[in-house]
Amino acid sequence: MPDLQEKAHLFHQLHRSGEILILPNIWDPLGALLLEDMGFPAVATASAAIAYSAGYNDGENIPFDDLVKKLKDISDRVSVPVSADIESGYAQDNEQLQRNIRQLIESGIAGINIEDTDAKTGSLLPAALQCKKIETIRKTAGNMGVSLFINARTDVFIKANPGGSTEDQLKEAVKRAHAYQAAGADGFYPILLQEEDAIKEMVQAANMPVNVLMVPGMPELSILRRMGVARVSLGPGFLKIAMNAMKQLAAKLKAGEGTEEVASNNITSDYLKMLVNKK
Amino acid sequence: MPDLQEKAHLFHQLHRSGEILILPNIWDPLGALLLEDMGFPAVATASAAIAYSAGYNDGENIPFDDLVKKLKDISDRVSVPVSADIESGYAQDNEQLQRNIRQLIESGIAGINIEDTDAKTGSLLPAALQCKKIETIRKTAGNMGVSLFINARTDVFIKANPGGSTEDQLKEAVKRAHAYQAAGADGFYPILLQEEDAIKEMVQAANMPVNVLMVPGMPELSILRRMGVARVSLGPGFLKIAMNAMKQLAAKLKAGEGTEEVASNNITSDYLKMLVNKK
Repeated sequence: MPDLQEKAHLFHQLHRSGEILILPNIWDPLGALLLEDMGFPAVATASAAIAYSAGYNDGENIPFDDLVKKLKDISDRVSVPVSADIESGYAQDNEQLQRNIRQLIESGIAGINIEDTDAKTGSLLPAALQCKKIETIRKTAGNMGVSLFINARTDVFIKANPGGSTEDQLKEAVKRAHAYQAAGADGFYPILLQEEDAIKEMVQAANMPVNVLMVPGMPELSILRRMGVARVSLGPGFLKIAMNAMKQLAAKLKAGEGTEEVASNNITSDYLKMLVNKK
Repeated sequence: MPDLQEKAHLFHQLHRSGEILILPNIWDPLGALLLEDMGFPAVATASAAIAYSAGYNDGENIPFDDLVKKLKDISDRVSVPVSADIESGYAQDNEQLQRNIRQLIESGIAGINIEDTDAKTGSLLPAALQCKKIETIRKTAGNMGVSLFINARTDVFIKANPGGSTEDQLKEAVKRAHAYQAAGADGFYPILLQEEDAIKEMVQAANMPVNVLMVPGMPELSILRRMGVARVSLGPGFLKIAMNAMKQLAAKLKAGEGTEEVASNNITSDYLKMLVNKK
């Protein structure tokens, strides 16, 4: 799959360019086309956004085949690399993980997010078991000739030492970053890490690109960039912005208004046609 | 299919309640869940919104099986009646139209929009041929025990007498309204009809519920209601509102800003979870 390998290679480079890689996570082809047209050099899905838009809870509830179909529809439509949030991998065992990774790569995915929460129990998977999974993914992708970008997400800041100190969590996260990299991870995503000093420490301690989630209270993008953060995700933030606009218009319509909002919208049918006809 | 027949029955009533039925057309389960939660008594898809969001041009370009899957995902998730915009029916002949209608009804659809543009040529289908199609749909749905609400859209105001007078178009549209009703249509949708006097004349001449598209320059909803308009659609208007919000945030992010917008958004993950867990 030489075309996909080229995209994977480009996606790796985007994490080491010195520029911060901003990924306002999308869930459908049109969102991907919008970002591509605006000059974003890659797009990524958020599992929560894909799940919600399809009417499911996040947490591997959407059928895996439905997920793969959605990812294929997205990667078929854009030229930029597509990274997929695959939660814990939708797998009960190693064989299933291999099959899933093969299907994902065949759908045209250049990178993945894989998280260290155990989908069955909801608690944090021991680091050694998560390393086994990362090794399996690395090997499966390698056998297909694709340098899949493996973004190893840790849920330490959600799950580890609840009530414990951030310092303990940070120590555990750094330990996991090193272990995950040794197992084959290309990037590290300590989700919900948000304090400026803690982010700084993580960026220095991790020997690979660090991804942070943009949440209320975060430093601005320009500051994150100076701190050496490689990548910023929005999770379902982009979906929420769209939903907010829809909810506001729907409320106006219920009140017998809204004609003006519909008329003054800047997005035209010609613009949407241009997007879907680009490729 | 007694449950679906109940929904179809309810959907018919909603066109004759004296209230104006507002349908801010959606394209995915989450949009349907949002509107249901806000008290909209029915939801409808727009073919353009479904096509664009999936990365296709409108005009029966999205594979029919993909469309049916999307419609099933939507109708599985909400309790309110779902009406589907099926363009010209995705059919080369009568047998294919029958098969398609059966598949659509099996997906849980209580109503359809069927338009009188010939998908092959792009020009207006002779009224007699469109009547044949409506008869086929009526009969196929009847055989399944479902009073499918057939909203007969005419494209007269887009296609007929280009350069001719609105008066001639109005005459042709009224003729088609009567013919389509005799063939089994339940509602009439003269898309792009927008002048107040012309809408008034149409509502009086048509002996069935009239649907208008909300476009810039239209009278406000309260006025349309007083004029006896039964139903108002937004076409891809709702999608455009969502896209506008996404585009604005994406532009901010590109400029190194946007943290505030993400933080001040009123849509929470708890709200989205509530929506997808309702049923």
